[in-house]
Amino acid sequence: MSHQVQQRAVVLLSGGLDSATIAAMAKHEGYRITAISFDYGQRHRHELDAAQRVAESLGIEDHRVAQIDLRAFGGSALTDDIAVPKDRDESEMEKSIPVTYVPARNTIFLSYALALAEVLGANDIFIGVNAVDYSGYPDCRPEYIAAFEAMAGLATKAGVEGTGRVQIHTPLIDLTKRRIIERGLELGVDYGLTHSCYDPDEEGRACGHCDSCLLRKNAFDALGMHDPVLEYAQSGSEK
Amino acid sequence: MSHQVQQRAVVLLSGGLDSATIAAMAKHEGYRITAISFDYGQRHRHELDAAQRVAESLGIEDHRVAQIDLRAFGGSALTDDIAVPKDRDESEMEKSIPVTYVPARNTIFLSYALALAEVLGANDIFIGVNAVDYSGYPDCRPEYIAAFEAMAGLATKAGVEGTGRVQIHTPLIDLTKRRIIERGLELGVDYGLTHSCYDPDEEGRACGHCDSCLLRKNAFDALGMHDPVLEYAQSGSEK
Repeated sequence: MSHQVQQRAVVLLSGGLDSATIAAMAKHEGYRITAISFDYGQRHRHELDAAQRVAESLGIEDHRVAQIDLRAFGGSALTDDIAVPKDRDESEMEKSIPVTYVPARNTIFLSYALALAEVLGANDIFIGVNAVDYSGYPDCRPEYIAAFEAMAGLATKAGVEGTGRVQIHTPLIDLTKRRIIERGLELGVDYGLTHSCYDPDEEGRACGHCDSCLLRKNAFDALGMHDPVLEYAQSGSEK
Repeated sequence: MSHQVQQRAVVLLSGGLDSATIAAMAKHEGYRITAISFDYGQRHRHELDAAQRVAESLGIEDHRVAQIDLRAFGGSALTDDIAVPKDRDESEMEKSIPVTYVPARNTIFLSYALALAEVLGANDIFIGVNAVDYSGYPDCRPEYIAAFEAMAGLATKAGVEGTGRVQIHTPLIDLTKRRIIERGLELGVDYGLTHSCYDPDEEGRACGHCDSCLLRKNAFDALGMHDPVLEYAQSGSEK
């Protein structure tokens, strides 16, 4: 590929805080971005709306949504019917699996990204995995990512021929949530557009009390800031 | 797991000749089988019907079908709008990509199988890849399968903790089509139930002239047999 041509990257964009940050980082590095989001049921409607808002705010014109059919894994119970724990401290969160758990999740997501990269002729995939906040997750660790990358290098013709070996970029993997937000703010990310809450109301407003809301809130607090997705909730409670 | 309990295996069942054979092999080895098939568009309706027939004929009670959304990769052109070459010899076939090409196909299929294995607590996945007939395919080679297995071992909690490391079984990987059929016939596979044709008629009858039909037909011919899926076509042309 010539240096004049903008290199294309596939960015896994969930609509959450982390993925908004990596999309901004990929853009900052000069990549032409194709974003991919996954629709795996009704609970994720607000996340998909957020993904679309984030893509628009970053000027990403190519945004794909792939349906992931969880019924094959035993129905929607995995994502729909689990009570959302509230107001836990971070040591409690670390011990448990989030309610948005999807089996072999990052492997499935990265496989779709790999397929898309193959179709587009892209050699770069960005994923917002983080080994700090979710240390219990095997598929958020550097050794897992390295193994996926090695497999990907053997999976495609371009990889085997050495003309297009895919690289999996994980720029957040060893950053705290606070550092992630600092980096995103430097790049102009509007975190008010993102969605992280496990238990939003009908309009998609964050609850402010689930693990995902608290992780964000604590990080913004540590920066002496308000999490913008919680501002209306706070102003609402002041009325 | 106790030796009294039948071990569960996930079998990738396309409805073709190869996957029918591995399903029979997994059954013969004593596994309790969960079969998974993929629905990636209208063209595959006859394959899915065949997968269901094969599952029933082998007494497989648990058969899942997962939708794979190819639109995210640029629409149905990849599978629907490509002319099917006819009456080519096997050296011509080796040089080209089949019309049923799906990008990063085995990686996506194996990722779903891995997710299903995780949900079921299964440690064994069977896939009918073959490095002889499709030597041009990176993701049909033993080194690719080994890399996927290594990645899978790092992707799941059971894998990391050593309590359930997934093994990818590829019993056909170095067999010729003729040997595959011989093995299947020994195990009682009814190849008349399978579907391999790239260009079937409305009722799903095999054309007998596409690459996939010819590979099978040549192998049955070498065994001094008729391919049972072609019998009505032959009797039809004799009328």
